[in-house]
Amino acid sequence: MSTHSLPRIAVTMGDPAGIGPEICLHLLKDASLAEICIPIVFGDAGVLQRVAEKLKIPFLAPVVLNPRVAKGPGVLDLRAIDAAAVISGRVDARCGDAAYRYVIAAIDAGLAGSIDAVATGPLNKEAMHAAGHKYPGHTEIFSERMKAARSCMMLTSPEVTCSFVTVHVGYHEVPRLLSVRRILDVIELTADAMQRIRGRPPRLAVCGLNPHAGENGLFGQGEEEKFIRPAIAAARAQGLEIEGPLPPDTAFLPRRRQTTDAFICMYHDQGHIPLKALAFDSAINTTLGLPVIRTSVDHGTAFDIAWQGRANPSSLGEAVRLAARLAPSRL
Amino acid sequence: MSTHSLPRIAVTMGDPAGIGPEICLHLLKDASLAEICIPIVFGDAGVLQRVAEKLKIPFLAPVVLNPRVAKGPGVLDLRAIDAAAVISGRVDARCGDAAYRYVIAAIDAGLAGSIDAVATGPLNKEAMHAAGHKYPGHTEIFSERMKAARSCMMLTSPEVTCSFVTVHVGYHEVPRLLSVRRILDVIELTADAMQRIRGRPPRLAVCGLNPHAGENGLFGQGEEEKFIRPAIAAARAQGLEIEGPLPPDTAFLPRRRQTTDAFICMYHDQGHIPLKALAFDSAINTTLGLPVIRTSVDHGTAFDIAWQGRANPSSLGEAVRLAARLAPSRL
Repeated sequence: MSTHSLPRIAVTMGDPAGIGPEICLHLLKDASLAEICIPIVFGDAGVLQRVAEKLKIPFLAPVVLNPRVAKGPGVLDLRAIDAAAVISGRVDARCGDAAYRYVIAAIDAGLAGSIDAVATGPLNKEAMHAAGHKYPGHTEIFSERMKAARSCMMLTSPEVTCSFVTVHVGYHEVPRLLSVRRILDVIELTADAMQRIRGRPPRLAVCGLNPHAGENGLFGQGEEEKFIRPAIAAARAQGLEIEGPLPPDTAFLPRRRQTTDAFICMYHDQGHIPLKALAFDSAINTTLGLPVIRTSVDHGTAFDIAWQGRANPSSLGEAVRLAARLAPSRL
Repeated sequence: MSTHSLPRIAVTMGDPAGIGPEICLHLLKDASLAEICIPIVFGDAGVLQRVAEKLKIPFLAPVVLNPRVAKGPGVLDLRAIDAAAVISGRVDARCGDAAYRYVIAAIDAGLAGSIDAVATGPLNKEAMHAAGHKYPGHTEIFSERMKAARSCMMLTSPEVTCSFVTVHVGYHEVPRLLSVRRILDVIELTADAMQRIRGRPPRLAVCGLNPHAGENGLFGQGEEEKFIRPAIAAARAQGLEIEGPLPPDTAFLPRRRQTTDAFICMYHDQGHIPLKALAFDSAINTTLGLPVIRTSVDHGTAFDIAWQGRANPSSLGEAVRLAARLAPSRL
């Protein structure tokens, strides 16, 4: 396979004081990953070098000046922080600022077409806020800077994949945020993503809002009839294979999970509860609908084990693999 | 062990045209069950006899005239239907009426102290409604006839046990049904039941309502602060071991499940989703707070396989075992 057709994935290093540098070093020497994509760490080469020496991890990947022409794994050295000043495991505004700048650089590279997708390493929210960047997380930085017309969160794991009509809002706000348009947007974004992941038309399922999906109007305000059924009908009219509205509790039974590629959930806990109960910490977070694909690790900066050789790089590796599968094919 | 100390469990036969008679026949010859309780099937001996002959299941349990003095497994023959008239797998008002009468007889026997607990076989809602008994299910028949001051549903399985502050109401109705008193009632009922099941003070956990349990007021209307925290504080003041409010999605992680005897859930799907995802069909439904313990199978009448020798009696057996554990000890 020619490397020219491999997707280039920007991997943001995350907070320098966390486990980000260590897991990026493992990523850069992962031969199986280099077969499917060109990972380019957006970070500080000096920090990577310091962590590599401390933990005796080989660090052979070159510094690249232009991700657009990279031929294999490399590092875009953003020189956002003095490596000698970083104290592992400590909340520091300078680290928060550097982590933010890696993300901005990756977004801009994506918008410029220099890379095909972004996989984000863990941010420390406190450090980033201390640096004056008051975002709740990656999703909001990406959505704002990329001016996405419509987007949604998708969590994917070997056991179950869920995308979300609403996410970080109060329980009581959910019913008034439902609309046929929004639900159909999420269905369409999910169908597109799952087609690319599975390489075939996906089988989707949409959960109801109320217990038993309303049981024919017995529970709720008719949200299933007013919003969910028309959105499903519109999706079917587009040729999508889609079931629902399903009673939320039986949606995630084992035999249904086996025949469903992704579930469209109405609210945060409807999908997060089964995901966490079944998949523990193995889910990958994806923001769908952005002009550039973004995936993310499912863990934090883990300051308590930073720079100690104890971090597990598998979630970042999975996030990069998923980004590579979702990235538009390059010919 | 003297049989005098064994709890007497009324087992309602359920709809005669469903799988109820078959699973009751298996129950009556279950020696391990007879060691821990005295199961008395409230049903029709003629129907049991017909099914026993058709399926070649031994039917040796005697007809008892007074459950209060039964010394071993038996049948209280309520003669509610002509056995020859029952057509297996068919919705029939006469069967619905008979099934309802078994339940009423069991409730009245419980209120009179003739039996110690009730385990209910599956009703066919359509048949019961056709007979003029317009109840959504067992829970409402029991609550009405027993005039319970406070009660709640609990679902228990080997993987996870949940009790419910609200159950069969629309999504939007949940916030206004929360109160410190109601949450504390459910905590107290659950603590009492789990003490009897585990034989030691239980460890309980209470879920929040909002994503991340509100994240310090970021999401929601402060339900965690206004209702859930004060109820937990009041429960702790009574000496109960109880955590919360937990973020609902991380509440059901494997390591938390291992250290938690029961979860108090704010709404139907918050607990039903993890229960069904993890425990498939093995959960037992219990109504707590009634003057007489009631447990139930987790399946329906299964008309499609009725009277065919294909029904699995394990859920009814588990419901009887749980009823025996929860029943007040008899000295």
